[in-house]
This record gives sequence, C-alpha cells and structure tokens, in this order.
Amino acid sequence: MDAPPFHLSVKAHRTGEQPINHLMHQAVTRPELISLAAGLVDYDSLPVEAVRTCAASLLGDASSGQAALQYGTTEGLAELRDAMLGRLESLDGVTRAEMNLTTEQVVITTGSQQGLYLLAVAMLDPGDIVIASAPDYFVYTHALCSFAADVRSVPVDDDGMRIDELERLLEELASTGELERLKFIYVVSSFQNPTGISLSADRRARLVELARTYSRTRRILVIDDAAYRELRYDGPDTPSIKSYDRDNRYVALAMTFSKAFSPGMKTGCLMLPDELVKPVLWQKGNHDFGSQNLGQHLLYEAMRTGAYARQVERLIAVYRAKRDVMLEALDAHLSDIDGVRWVRPKGGLYVWLTLPTGWDAGPGSELFQRCLDKGVMYVPGAYAYAADGENPVPAHEIRLSFGVASRTAITEGVRRLGAAVREQAAGAPSTGASSTGGNVGSVTAP
Amino acid sequence: MDAPPFHLSVKAHRTGEQPINHLMHQAVTRPELISLAAGLVDYDSLPVEAVRTCAASLLGDASSGQAALQYGTTEGLAELRDAMLGRLESLDGVTRAEMNLTTEQVVITTGSQQGLYLLAVAMLDPGDIVIASAPDYFVYTHALCSFAADVRSVPVDDDGMRIDELERLLEELASTGELERLKFIYVVSSFQNPTGISLSADRRARLVELARTYSRTRRILVIDDAAYRELRYDGPDTPSIKSYDRDNRYVALAMTFSKAFSPGMKTGCLMLPDELVKPVLWQKGNHDFGSQNLGQHLLYEAMRTGAYARQVERLIAVYRAKRDVMLEALDAHLSDIDGVRWVRPKGGLYVWLTLPTGWDAGPGSELFQRCLDKGVMYVPGAYAYAADGENPVPAHEIRLSFGVASRTAITEGVRRLGAAVREQAAGAPSTGASSTGGNVGSVTAP
Repeated sequence: MDAPPFHLSVKAHRTGEQPINHLMHQAVTRPELISLAAGLVDYDSLPVEAVRTCAASLLGDASSGQAALQYGTTEGLAELRDAMLGRLESLDGVTRAEMNLTTEQVVITTGSQQGLYLLAVAMLDPGDIVIASAPDYFVYTHALCSFAADVRSVPVDDDGMRIDELERLLEELASTGELERLKFIYVVSSFQNPTGISLSADRRARLVELARTYSRTRRILVIDDAAYRELRYDGPDTPSIKSYDRDNRYVALAMTFSKAFSPGMKTGCLMLPDELVKPVLWQKGNHDFGSQNLGQHLLYEAMRTGAYARQVERLIAVYRAKRDVMLEALDAHLSDIDGVRWVRPKGGLYVWLTLPTGWDAGPGSELFQRCLDKGVMYVPGAYAYAADGENPVPAHEIRLSFGVASRTAITEGVRRLGAAVREQAAGAPSTGASSTGGNVGSVTAP
Repeated sequence: MDAPPFHLSVKAHRTGEQPINHLMHQAVTRPELISLAAGLVDYDSLPVEAVRTCAASLLGDASSGQAALQYGTTEGLAELRDAMLGRLESLDGVTRAEMNLTTEQVVITTGSQQGLYLLAVAMLDPGDIVIASAPDYFVYTHALCSFAADVRSVPVDDDGMRIDELERLLEELASTGELERLKFIYVVSSFQNPTGISLSADRRARLVELARTYSRTRRILVIDDAAYRELRYDGPDTPSIKSYDRDNRYVALAMTFSKAFSPGMKTGCLMLPDELVKPVLWQKGNHDFGSQNLGQHLLYEAMRTGAYARQVERLIAVYRAKRDVMLEALDAHLSDIDGVRWVRPKGGLYVWLTLPTGWDAGPGSELFQRCLDKGVMYVPGAYAYAADGENPVPAHEIRLSFGVASRTAITEGVRRLGAAVREQAAGAPSTGASSTGGNVGSVTAP
C-alpha cells in the first residue's frame, strides 16, 4: 500500500544539498583520484598524540573525567571560553576590557559553521539582505539560500573585499530604501576560502566604520569569520576585524579549532555584541542545548597545557611546505600557458587559479571531465559565487587545496591539471558561464 | 555613541529561553540546595574508565586516531550507524530487513535533541499542527514554539498516551479540515520524561495504525523518542514504535547515548523513513555538516568492545537502587498526606508526583518557595504542559529526578519536600493555575 507524501516545510523546499557533496561522492567512489578539491586537512599532522595525552590526563582523574562526561551548558565550558578570549587577546595585542568583551559574550559552537548558522537564524527573514564577497565561502552562502536571503556580492581584489565597492553598495541600498533589510556583512577575514586573500588592516578599520555609519535605524552586523587566521605562513598578522570594534557593537567574531588543531573536534566559538548573546543562545538551546562537552574539556586541556599552541606551530610548518610545493608545481606546469594566473597565498589551505576569460571550468565542463579522466579533481570556482540573477557566474576559476593531498600527490595532481589545461588550450575550449550556472543549480536543487 | 538596535528575525522573536534554565541558574547560585529538579545524570557511574580505555585504544594507533580527528561526514560514521541499527535489532528482536531499514536511513545527530529539532525544521511551517502528550518533554515542546507550531495535547494515563483520545482528536482534525496541517505525533515511548510512564505495546501498534489511517493526502509522521528505553529496571522490554512500522513509512525513531552511556558525548541518531533522509541531511549540512567526529569514533569503540553494553547494565543497577531510595522516601514522608500520589516508574530517571487538585506547585508558588527555603528544588509540572489557550495548565504536579542526587541527598531532599507539603497542607494552600501559567510565560518570553 502506497503512502501519501510527507508535507515538508517551506524551508525544506528551499534547502538543497551542499554542492560540494557532489564532488565528495565522486572522490569516494574513485579513490585513485588525486583530490585537490577536498576541504579536508593533512592527515599525518593531526594531533593524535596531543589529544591522547589530553584524554589520558582528563580521564585519568575521576572528578575531571566525570565533569567532561556529564551534561555541559548551552553556552559552553567557562574555562574554554576564557581561554579562547585569552587567545584572541594575545593574537590581537588588545585586552578583553579594551574590546568590551567578557566570557559572557563568548558562545561555544559545533564548529564555526554552527555559529554562523545560528547568527543567520537569529537575524534573517526571507528577503533580508546579506552582503558577502565574490567569490566567497560557498558552504555558508549555500546555507543562506535556505533562509531565502538576498545575498549581494562585493568583489575581492588583492587586499580582500573592495571597500569602495561595499560603500557604493551601501549607498545604493540607502537610496533604494533597502538599508533596513540589510542584516549583516559576512567576511572571511584572513586567507579567505576560496581565494587565500586577506582583508588588509586599513580595510578592516574602514569596514567597521562603514557598518557604524550605515547603521541608521537598524544596526548592521559584520561577521568576521577567522577560521584560517592562525595558519599564517608569511608576513605579519593582521588584527581581527573584531579588534576595531572597541565598543563590541558591530562585529561578531567566529573562530574554530577545525583548521589550526583538528576538525574532528568540531568545536568553534562566537564572540558577540551583548545584544546578540541571548538570541543566539536561545536558538542554540533549541538546536542542541550545548555542544559536545567532552570535546570542550579536551580542547581546554590542550590550550592549558600548551599543546594547542605547539600544534599550531607544527601545522604552520607542514602547510607552508605544502603550499610551496603547490606553487612550485604550478610554476612548473602552468606558468607558460597564456592567461593562466594564481594567487600566492600567505596562509590558509587554498590556491585560487584563474584561467583565461571565457573558459569553462564548471562541474559539467569539458575541462572538469578531462581532469577527472587524468585522475585529478578541483573545486569549480563557480560554486563560490552567489547567482544574483544579473551577472553571469564566472566559470573560469578553480579552487585548489593543498590541505589533504600529500606533497607527492600535490605535485602529480598539479602536473595532471597542467596537462589537462594545455590540452584544453590546444583544442577548442567550450565557453559559456550559463551552462555552468545551470549545472550548479541542478546539483543544489532539492 | 549609542547604536541602533539589531533587527532580529521573526523566529528569534518567537524564541524564548528554555524555562528550565531559570531553575538551573537558581541551583548554581545556591549549591547547598538539593536538586531533585536537574536532568543531569549520576556522576559516580559515568563511564570515565571505559571512555579512557576507548580513547587510549583509538588514539594509540596513528591511523584510527587520524580518522577520528579528521572531518567526518554529515550523516555520521558508517560503523556507528551500523552498530546503532544492530542494537535496535537486538532490542526489538526484529531484523533491519524486516523493518526495511539500512544504514542509509540512519543519521547521527548532536544528541537526540538535534535530531528532533531537525525533523521540526524539515517539516514545520507556522500554524502547522503537532500532537504531543500532556504532560510532555518540555525542552522539545518549548522548541516547537519557535516554529509557531500549534501543539495539541493528548492526555496520558498509566499506559501512556491515550490512544482513544488521539483517535478522537484525529477525527476532529479530519472533520475541521485541519488534518493536512498535522505534521507529526511526538511520543517519548518508554519511561517518559516527565511521568516515567511507557506507552503499552498495544497502543504502539494502534498508534502506527492510526497514523497510517489518517494519512489521507499527506503523510503523518510518528516520532518515537526512545531516550530512556535502555534504563529499564523492572518488567519486560516493549518493542519500539518503529518496530510496528514494517514498511519504514510512518515512524522516525530518535535514540541517544546521553542517558544510557554519557551525556558528555552528546550523540544520538535518527532512523528515518527514506523520504525524510535527504530533507534532514540537507538541513544538518547547513547546521554543522556533521556532528563531532571524535565522539562518534569513541562511541563506536565502546559499542564494538562491549563497553557500551556493560555500562548500560551498570547504570540499570545504579538507577534502580536510586529509584527505590526515592520511592521509599516518598512512602516514608508523603504517603500519609491526603490526595498526594505518585507514579512508580519501571525505568527512566523521574518520579511524577501529584498533589491535591487545586494546589499550586508552580515556579512562583508558596510551595516552591517553601521548598527552596528548606533547601530542595523540583521541576514544576506546569512546565510540561503546552498552553493551549483553552484549558488552564495544571499546577499541582511535580517532576522529581533521581538522576544526579546521591542516595543520601534523595532521602533528605524528599524529607524536606514532605515537610514543605505538610506545612502547606496545614496552612491555606494558594491555588490558581492561571498564576503559574503566567509565571511560566514570563520566564519563557524573550
């Protein structure tokens, strides 16, 4: 006997599969493929010994072990919130008092993704406007679609989000009366996913100033996603956007242990303007009434004992070397192809590669298939653009990751990519951003 | 310079603090208080050694340690999903094939709360109808308010939800044309929070049959929340509601490791009709793209090695003894007070106490204050009722937990409660369900 269909929510109908899953499934079914696509991290440098030591110590004592295995609180372990705030102080060289922050404004989340999502739940109604970068971190912009948010994009140059373009957009929203619908501006501040580019210090200050200026009747929030900040290989650190918000009024900072320690801990935190603490906590109370407690105790132990700081140092050395291997391979295999260029990132896990204008590197493209045939996979750059209905989604860009592949695999993967690009250049490249846009759509549609 | 206010979402405005938090804050600020309120579990029996052993083994090997510290998948660890399904088969004496279930329909969640919440996200629009019990698990019914769900209640007797009353309600919804708005029926099937009562086997079969019968143009889901099932102290086990849904079409089962192993692991799972797998996974992809991976590996290790089954046996002995202590204390200190009675639960963590009709045991009541003055706290039963605008919320009931308090504290706590009730009975009891309802409202309002 057939059953009638379930009647799903409007939100469910607006929600599709993360497009990146489609690539992951391909990778899983073809293990011989070199994946320069996956957002996974390096296996060999995962802190297995450090976590084992922390676990032995934490669980070697009945009292601390019991505390870790009992329920925690919705806001998270007080000691860990304090330690995260201490880490921020030390990175920014600014005290918590100067930032008007206390542990009361710190909320532990299930990775920074949950923090970003909770901010969206607390702030967005259908049709509300969010400003993001073009290109941007597609997992989050994809999630924003499920809120029927109107995502407006500001282009990125070598210093990050174009603040002059942002100001132009804000002025336009003011003139059309849409400023009241603008809820937040989302920025991956350091070594952005996917471009590897950081927002310059000048622009950070200017960004906060713009949020303040345009907060006329409603306050505009800046979300400072600092996921990659600690994976810095060259050059000086840049203070967080949060550090320019001395009254703690305009900036929410999202941090995570996933990149600089271990994604298997799936723990991050938000540092919030006070008025957003309860709205976020109340949503989190409904979602899960608190992230996994054992992991929080383990991470606090790692911070307290210095294991966290040592792991960051270790990862910096590992990923710096892997980045260099990727850049050397790109120099060797792609530098002689006309119109191909790439960002040389000073941190993070990604290299952003641009092919000649008009090329199609999308998931349904000849080039993508050619790469699969040669045994290498990348993330089509088109995934990282919000379709705004006006401009075609650029299809000639590629995100390469040096996170999970070994150094040998990086070299070989880039060699295969170079061969595919060369063949493509020799033949007739298939063009057309629209076809790629269509493919992205069909992958994400429910 | 003052900043204008943030413009929060409609959902944020609909979401209040979990009322139970209010009690927890009181408990934290008054550590001398004996809490028979807290939903925490027994400290001394937490599986510290078992988890330490699992962690040492898992992290003692580079390969398994790296797998646990890397990103996991949105649906969760395949081996753990398989083990959970195996556990269900063994509890129900029914094969997965007979239930038309595979690991593909199992999703690991951040506690069962996240699973329950994701089902609500995937299914509910404002005004949609959910059927729950009266009384019911208030953390979830509170979360349902943030969806603007219309929660209709069916009373509970000694055999659980009154299925005759459920049928009457379904018939009423059919006659008013509201059946299409009914999305699911939520049931804590075994040793319900807060009453300790289980749904009888006959009623489980009948419940599934009713869901099938009334699924006319839209399918009605039954959510079988089995959080307490394995904490069974007397009597035979009852097969899951899920086991009566042989086509896997009408019942979603939520399980958790929080009660029968450790809440600090904050891990549960959903077993879903196939049509709900993608809608739930796609929401979860946006929420966190997967629960904490390390915890899943640790729990799989605990299941694989038998540590989980041994822990369940140990907890059964511990909680059975604590339940008996509470029942003995109630016999000693409250049995001679007219009109006072309580459920003798065969499992779970709670004793549901009923005072004479007309008494007020609400959070703002004289009795609640009298108990605080004597140094004991309970959960007012009023929290466990959805305010439906028609019937006043019953105010003369109390949830007592024997979870976290020691045996000595249970005895002393119940003695204090008895003394407070006795004094209240001797004086003029303050009545009025409405005043309690008001108090609950003020606590939950944003």
